[in-house]
Order: sequence, then C-alpha cells, then structure tokens
Amino acid sequence: MRYQALPTHDIWTETAGNSAPLDLSCIRRVVDQGLAAFLNDRVRTAVDGRLPAEVPQLLKGFLDSGGKRLRPLLCVIGWHAGGGHGDIAPVLKVAASLELFHAFCLIHDDVMDDSRTRRGQPTVHRALADQHTSGHSRGNAERFGASGAILVGDLALSWSDELVHTAGLTTAQITRVLPLIHEMRTEVMYGQYLDIAATGSPTDDLDRALAIARYKTAKYTIERPLHIGAALAGGDVGLLTALSDFALPIGEAFQLHDDLLGVYGNPAVTGKPCTDDLRDGKHTAVVAIALQRADRDQRKSLTGLIGSGDLDEDGADRIRVILGSTGARHTVEQMIQSRCEQAERTLSQAPFPAAARHALRTLARAATERTA
Amino acid sequence: MRYQALPTHDIWTETAGNSAPLDLSCIRRVVDQGLAAFLNDRVRTAVDGRLPAEVPQLLKGFLDSGGKRLRPLLCVIGWHAGGGHGDIAPVLKVAASLELFHAFCLIHDDVMDDSRTRRGQPTVHRALADQHTSGHSRGNAERFGASGAILVGDLALSWSDELVHTAGLTTAQITRVLPLIHEMRTEVMYGQYLDIAATGSPTDDLDRALAIARYKTAKYTIERPLHIGAALAGGDVGLLTALSDFALPIGEAFQLHDDLLGVYGNPAVTGKPCTDDLRDGKHTAVVAIALQRADRDQRKSLTGLIGSGDLDEDGADRIRVILGSTGARHTVEQMIQSRCEQAERTLSQAPFPAAARHALRTLARAATERTA
Repeated sequence: MRYQALPTHDIWTETAGNSAPLDLSCIRRVVDQGLAAFLNDRVRTAVDGRLPAEVPQLLKGFLDSGGKRLRPLLCVIGWHAGGGHGDIAPVLKVAASLELFHAFCLIHDDVMDDSRTRRGQPTVHRALADQHTSGHSRGNAERFGASGAILVGDLALSWSDELVHTAGLTTAQITRVLPLIHEMRTEVMYGQYLDIAATGSPTDDLDRALAIARYKTAKYTIERPLHIGAALAGGDVGLLTALSDFALPIGEAFQLHDDLLGVYGNPAVTGKPCTDDLRDGKHTAVVAIALQRADRDQRKSLTGLIGSGDLDEDGADRIRVILGSTGARHTVEQMIQSRCEQAERTLSQAPFPAAARHALRTLARAATERTA
Repeated sequence: MRYQALPTHDIWTETAGNSAPLDLSCIRRVVDQGLAAFLNDRVRTAVDGRLPAEVPQLLKGFLDSGGKRLRPLLCVIGWHAGGGHGDIAPVLKVAASLELFHAFCLIHDDVMDDSRTRRGQPTVHRALADQHTSGHSRGNAERFGASGAILVGDLALSWSDELVHTAGLTTAQITRVLPLIHEMRTEVMYGQYLDIAATGSPTDDLDRALAIARYKTAKYTIERPLHIGAALAGGDVGLLTALSDFALPIGEAFQLHDDLLGVYGNPAVTGKPCTDDLRDGKHTAVVAIALQRADRDQRKSLTGLIGSGDLDEDGADRIRVILGSTGARHTVEQMIQSRCEQAERTLSQAPFPAAARHALRTLARAATERTA
C-alpha cells in the first residue's frame, strides 16, 4: 500500500491502492508533513494572538532534527496487522500524535538528565537558555531554559491529545483507543520514574532493570503503538495478545541492545560519549548481572565507579573489563538473541497479513542490529 | 441544589433536588471524595503491578493539603448557569479533572520556581529530594526531586484526561467540551511561558503584564472552568460570552489583587515572604506602571532592586515607597475596583439562574477581598 505526500489541506488523505509491501518511508513522510502542517498552524495562531510562537517553532525544529518515527510506523503497521481498511487519514493522525507525545517525553527526559545535545542539536532547554542570556545572569538563563523546556514539553503532550481528538475517529474507535493511550502514558511515565529512582546507585536487582526496560521501552515503543493501530482497525483481544507476544521480547531486546551501546557503542556513531550511562549510574541489566556475579573486589570496583561523577575513560574501561570477565556482557547478548528468536517465532505463526509481518521483521532487524 | 457525600462506588452520583442556593461546600466535598477514590485506586493498581505507588500517594497528599477548589466549583456553577439538569455525576468528574490538572500546574510551577513550600507543606520536588538522600549525594537527591516532580506532574496531567474520558459524557458533551479543555491547557501553558520569559527583568510593558494575568489567571482559573461547565449543560455561544464578560474582569482583578498581596501581603497570612515576587522579578502590572511613571532615580532603584537575588527587607521597602509615590499601587487598586464593578454589572444583567448568580457573586467577593 502506498501513501502519497499531498498538499497541506488534505495531507492526511491516503490515495492509493492495496499493493504490498508497506511503504514505510512514505508513511513517515506523510506523518512528518502532517506534523509540520499542525505546528505551522500553531505558529500562525500564536503570532496572531501575540503568544509565544517560539514554542511551536521549537517543537517543529525538534521534529525536523531527526528521529526514526518508530512509534507512528508501528501504529500504522498495527492497523494493517488488524486488517485495517477504509479511510487511513485518522490512523495517520493518531500515528502522528504518538510522535508529538514522544517529543514531550524526550524534551522532559533531556531536562531531567540535563543533556546538552539531542540528534546533533542543542537540547530544547539548552537552546532556550542560550537565547535568554542578554540582560540575565547565567543562573537565570539556565533556570529559564529548564522551565521553558518543561512548558514546551507540556504543550507537546497537550497537543498530542488534540491530534487524537481531532483525528476524525469514529465513536467506536475512540472507545477502543483512548484506554490504550492512557495505559501507554502511565506506563512510560512510571517506567521513567522507576529509571530515575534507580539511577545513581545501581544494584544487582535484575528484575527491576528488566521492569524498567519493559515499561520504558518494550511497552511504550513497540507494544502500545501496535495496539493502538490494531484497535483503530477493530482488532480483537487475540490480535492484541499476538502483537504483545512479538512486541515485548523485541522491545526488551531493543532496550538491552541500547544498554550495550551505552557502554560499548562508538561515540562517533551513537552521538553520545559511551561513558555517560556509566557515569550517571543507569540501572541496566548488564550492570545488575555483573553485580550478581562479581567477587568482592569486582563489586567494590563497580559500586565505586558506576555513578561516580568524575568517571573517566580509564574507569569506564575497568568497568568494561568486569562486565566482560563476569560474563555479564555475554549473557545480555544471549538474552537479546533469545528475545529476537522468540519474537521471530511469534511473527512466523501470528495471523498478520504478509505485508504487516514483513514490515515488523524489517523494523525488528533494524532495531536490534543498529549501531546508534 | 444539594450534593450528598456518598460511598465510593457511587461517589459521583447526585441525590437531591433543586433547592437554591448551591451548596458549594458539598460540591467541594464530593469532588474531593471522588479524587481520593480515583487516586486510591491508582495506589492499589501500582502496588499490584510493583509500580511506584508513591506517585499517586504524593498526589493524594498534595490534594489533601489544601486549596480552594475554585475551578471545580466554577465548573459546576457554569453547568447551573447553563441551566444544566439531569445526571450531574459526569459534571462532577470533569470538575474533579480540573483540580487534578491544577495539581499538575502547581507541581510543575514549584519545580520552575524551586519553591520550598506549598500549602504549608514541602513542595513535591522537595519532599522527593528529602526522601532520596540515603546512598545519594545531595546533588543527586536534588536532581531526583526535580525529575520525580516533573513526572508526578506529567501523570497528574495524563490522569486528569482519564477522568474526563471516563466521566460518562455523552458524545454531544464530548464534542462541546474537549475543544474548551484544549484551549484552557494551551492558554495556561502559554501564559506561564510568557510569565517566566518576562521574570527577572521586568519592563514598563503593561500590556504584557495584563496578558500574563489574563492567560495565567483570568482565562485559566475563571473563564474556562465556567465555559466547560456551561458547555456540559449545552450552553450556547451567547451564554459563553456572558460568562466571559464576568470571568475576564473578575479574573484580572483576582490576579492584580494577588500581585499586590505578593508585595504588601502579611507573610503570616499568605504563607510566603512578601519579598519573593520582587526578588524573583515577577513582571506585574504594579511594577510596569511604576516603571512607566518613575523618574530617572526611581527607575534606577527599581531596575536595580527588582529581580536582584540578594534583595532584603530594606530593599523591598524602598520598592514599596516608589510603588506608592508613583501612584502605581493606587492605580492598580482602582483597576481592581473597576474590574469588580464591571463583573458585577455583567452578573446583574446576565441571564443566569439566581442560584448561579449568587454563587458567582460569593466567589468573586472571596477572591478579591482575600488576604492570602
């Protein structure tokens, strides 16, 4: 099935027929054009009302700077998996709302972590602080940056709602999809809360590390977008369960892979120093497993180094040696492998149309073989 | 009309007849019981799912610590003003959602301002930081406090949505009320953004000060809650306009009064030092007017003192003298007076039922004659 990029006034309208496979890059383009049109409209309204147009402009710049659009793509794939047919425009709007919601998550995350860059650009709070230096002390500018970014995020969340509510869904679709959107939000916020509460002094609690991966990533990034799309197509509980059976293992594999990239990734490719996660003391599965297996000296090294604000490359190397010698790295690689296999078994048995199955397989490979 | 407090399972159900006047304290009690039941349910779900139950617990504690419930009350009054009849339970749920949304606003505000107390209790980010000290550096605990409070606020916002979506509204009510809720959110967030962008170095721009008052307070606190209630009752554009004609002047008076309390209020009554607004450099009407009228020496004093981090009581007194001698204080008092009169004129002419008119008059007096 193909989606054609269209002029703004009917940008959400699908035009073409039913030929497999799904054209993911076209879905992505239509979603992006729809988001740009929505935010351009916000800019105009703000200018007319003498309201701060830099807010929608910042969001537009943020979306333009990159991102894989994984959640919108999965939402549309979920719709196809559920045998969706008829008007796809509302589905694409809901898909776009997931990207605006994700912008909210990332903007708030960056404030929480005080990250300096995202997608190669200054983070929203850094950009705002830098714009606010004239006539203000540095401290005031920093505070304005963080506060402004919290508000930009809050608006992204609110506007993601508006995209859903103005998507032109039927009453039946609204009834099916809103509870899933609520679940998704609560899950990712709880997951993020679990994450920050455990950050700084990681423990050997593997269950907790896996719970963080499940809530922050597997459910939020993969399962719920698929569910939302499938629910829009009228998919039943059996279909949603089949999607979960694929989504949860592949999502956990995705996060475990990300954890390894945070320790072993090539900074030139990932775009962030691979000491950051260790310096912040992120509570990950690889660290939890290493702590479970460490002897007394190794444990002392790990707890002394991980989460230490002045961790340098030498210290990070000492951690890497222990993650290797305890077998923690190898175990996590096996966990990734077995989860990918489990997801693949589900895919080959699930009652999804071939086009949806193929698209899921493509995304699954890209997600767990990536280097950034 | 009376609302009776009921057991949890049907806490939202109104029981009694149509006798004027509106029992505001009873509305408030039912709203509070409903919120408590909703959050208790969240606590149970979190405990069952091994998710962080302290989040709904913190929200519950926050709501229990006080607040005037102005927005829920105005929502219910708006419903009566619109001639609402039939099942009031959905109206009370939407009213309650406004209080949960307000909790979100205040929790994020307190992070932005780094306020230490709210309603006589530690703010959410302070409480979280204090709980997080063991095993963490002070800096880590502070960061966890701010990050955790951002997430608690995000969840309050998301859950306020859930209260609306599960309120049992008719399709017609949803169609009418969601756009108003969207407007309300965007307005208060933009208003807050205008506020923080102007804070630190106030100017003589009175229009901007009044725009902040309008968006942050008049529209958010008074106009939109009334509109939302009226829309639930099926009120037409004429009714909404009449409500705006009351709400905007009284809401601006409310904020102008608040600005004066921030400079002249009794700290023992307001609960916050009356140097805070001046030290933060809040861009208020009284300051803008004083700057317009100040001679060179007065202007130099005002710009040197307002927004100065080390402002002491002596400096605040020097500002107060200038606000008095330029006549800025007196002018703002006149502005409050004229806005109250304008609102009263609207009230006496508007086609609201007597009970709604009486309730609005009561709230208007309380809001602009308060000392805290």
